[in-house]
Amino acid sequence: MSPTTDRIAVVGGSISGLTAALMLRDAGVDVDVYERSPQPLSGFGTGIVVQPELVHYLLEQGVELDSISVPSSSMEYVDALTGERVGSVPADWRFTSYDSIYGGLYELFGPERYHTSKCLVGLSQDSETVQMRFSDGTKAEANWVIGADGGASVVRKRLLGIEPTYAGYVTWRGVLQPGEVADDVWNYFNDKFTYGLLDDGHLIAYPIPGRENAESPRLNFQWYWNVAEGPDLDELMTDVRGIRLPTSVHNNSLNPHNLRQFHSKGESLFKPFRDLVLNASSPFVTVVADATVDRMVHGRVLLIGDAAVTPRPHAAAGGAKACDDARTLAEVFTKNHDLRGSLQSWETRQLQQGHAYLNKVKKMASRLQHGGSFEPGNPAFAFGLPKVDEPSVVTNS
Amino acid sequence: MSPTTDRIAVVGGSISGLTAALMLRDAGVDVDVYERSPQPLSGFGTGIVVQPELVHYLLEQGVELDSISVPSSSMEYVDALTGERVGSVPADWRFTSYDSIYGGLYELFGPERYHTSKCLVGLSQDSETVQMRFSDGTKAEANWVIGADGGASVVRKRLLGIEPTYAGYVTWRGVLQPGEVADDVWNYFNDKFTYGLLDDGHLIAYPIPGRENAESPRLNFQWYWNVAEGPDLDELMTDVRGIRLPTSVHNNSLNPHNLRQFHSKGESLFKPFRDLVLNASSPFVTVVADATVDRMVHGRVLLIGDAAVTPRPHAAAGGAKACDDARTLAEVFTKNHDLRGSLQSWETRQLQQGHAYLNKVKKMASRLQHGGSFEPGNPAFAFGLPKVDEPSVVTNS
Repeated sequence: MSPTTDRIAVVGGSISGLTAALMLRDAGVDVDVYERSPQPLSGFGTGIVVQPELVHYLLEQGVELDSISVPSSSMEYVDALTGERVGSVPADWRFTSYDSIYGGLYELFGPERYHTSKCLVGLSQDSETVQMRFSDGTKAEANWVIGADGGASVVRKRLLGIEPTYAGYVTWRGVLQPGEVADDVWNYFNDKFTYGLLDDGHLIAYPIPGRENAESPRLNFQWYWNVAEGPDLDELMTDVRGIRLPTSVHNNSLNPHNLRQFHSKGESLFKPFRDLVLNASSPFVTVVADATVDRMVHGRVLLIGDAAVTPRPHAAAGGAKACDDARTLAEVFTKNHDLRGSLQSWETRQLQQGHAYLNKVKKMASRLQHGGSFEPGNPAFAFGLPKVDEPSVVTNS
Repeated sequence: MSPTTDRIAVVGGSISGLTAALMLRDAGVDVDVYERSPQPLSGFGTGIVVQPELVHYLLEQGVELDSISVPSSSMEYVDALTGERVGSVPADWRFTSYDSIYGGLYELFGPERYHTSKCLVGLSQDSETVQMRFSDGTKAEANWVIGADGGASVVRKRLLGIEPTYAGYVTWRGVLQPGEVADDVWNYFNDKFTYGLLDDGHLIAYPIPGRENAESPRLNFQWYWNVAEGPDLDELMTDVRGIRLPTSVHNNSLNPHNLRQFHSKGESLFKPFRDLVLNASSPFVTVVADATVDRMVHGRVLLIGDAAVTPRPHAAAGGAKACDDARTLAEVFTKNHDLRGSLQSWETRQLQQGHAYLNKVKKMASRLQHGGSFEPGNPAFAFGLPKVDEPSVVTNS
């Protein structure tokens, strides 16, 4: 059958929004992307473990996996204070970065129908169309809106009043260029995914592609801290101007005190981890938060990715879930006869997957953040999306 | 009797906090001020009508009223669309600016015990002391804390969980230098307090002292717009970066669309008002919000000014209320035998005054913002603090 002739608007121009928009456009659908940010996005060097769903579209377009990712041969489990090796499991993951994936998708989509500075403030719908209002005073209309605006989704908030709930911990992120740590430290982390286990929080570290050249990798790490809501969290999330920020405090507006605390806590770590913490040039901090919904289809407005179910990062498949939502939704619009029926089946399957994934990462966090047993190779803690019973609603015919 | 030997901390270094701190210090009390902002404050040219309570301290120190304010001879009530004069009442108000009052107080207090970049994040107390935590990682302790941190008070939020409630309208503010409007427009507003009445909102305009030289005044105006909570308010309060700001959007981060709307709405006004709107170089917008409490004394933590009762601005005595809270509280600490008893009487009187004032400005707003009758000279709408029955607890002996 032929794709829909309806106009589709995607609110949020990050990875899942672009994936949906590209697949729809490829099939001939009239599609626009509305992105809040004044310019194309940056992930500040954030690493991502490659899952098939994440790179599906790029590989279909002939992008070489080698050009956007670096390999690994094992997962390492280490006591981050003593350096004692808890376990090691062979694993051939590949690692990429937000910038590599987003950059590839954005380059394919192009700027023409990617509208920046479009911060959604209003959303209404009738039986035929959805009306959008943006903070720059413009309006737009489409027959369908795909809400792909992430964990702090305005679309979800307008539809359901749901905002993310703080998970009780934050993550510090840092990236190191070659030469910023000694060779032995570099080799300690290269070609591996390394867990640094602690009684109160944990670290992860792995190589990601270089900014210019994938084959000259960088090292990327995260350090998860348990921080109580109230004064402790407020102290960390209040920037140098005295403003309490809701989600992230970037390096250039961190209170110097917090950076000192980051470094001073880092002093107690086993040397390779300590060297990452002390030598990262622009570490920054982000709260970890969850959100969930029990519907993704709201009339003519459809939630996908983090804008639907916002998971914690521990199973390395949040982006994969978002891209799977995007891909399957695009297929509903381009390959199905019964749109309403297909949307319902799509919602059932994707919600099942999203809820199962959220449960999985919550379980992982309850171990990882509190010194619980985190057995090397335990399949319950494996990276990736959980299997769901529902078949994909889309037939590739 | 002699003043308290207790150490007192004032959280919030604006007008009321400085007034309290200066009076306490003058009496020999050990007092520190903790201010969230990284530098001394600026009022962005905001005008203030002089009330006796506001300038009481500065005049006691020998500051000449002429040096910080400009006079008026009448209040004018004008239809802001047609220019029709609704009424005129003789009135010898004087007008000052936030910068004049704050600057005078800050100069007297000095930087030594005025601690900047101290954003309160934590507050606890026991029977002897109050412990404060700030976002720069420092801590401080005092026997009493005076919460003078304004309408968005963190002290009040920590004590009571109370945050201000949006009043349904915003205010645009602008300031004009001599020469920025024609002489006839300047003279239209000079030497007067002018109401520009509208069916949906209102304007006020009056001269304020020049930044360098009080005798070379500027013109200051406000334009109150009714803006519905939700998309309309979100659109106005979302800045050029796509961030929804809670309180104010300053000129340099206003969405160009909102500035265009401000100017285009201004086109419909009677010429003198229109000229203010079109020629103000850096107009900015602030939400109007209320908050109230039923206690100002919370153990060893005392709320004053907007941090206790946050009123709307229409009776031109919010600063006077705050300074009266500050002055009478300082007197409780420096002139009374029975501290606990005096605090209780202080609270009773100041709460009565605060609540009565809040009721008064709400009544004024219900007329001014909705085209209700606003009779020239109606004593119910006169500027200033309401009379309260309770005597001041302080005897000047």
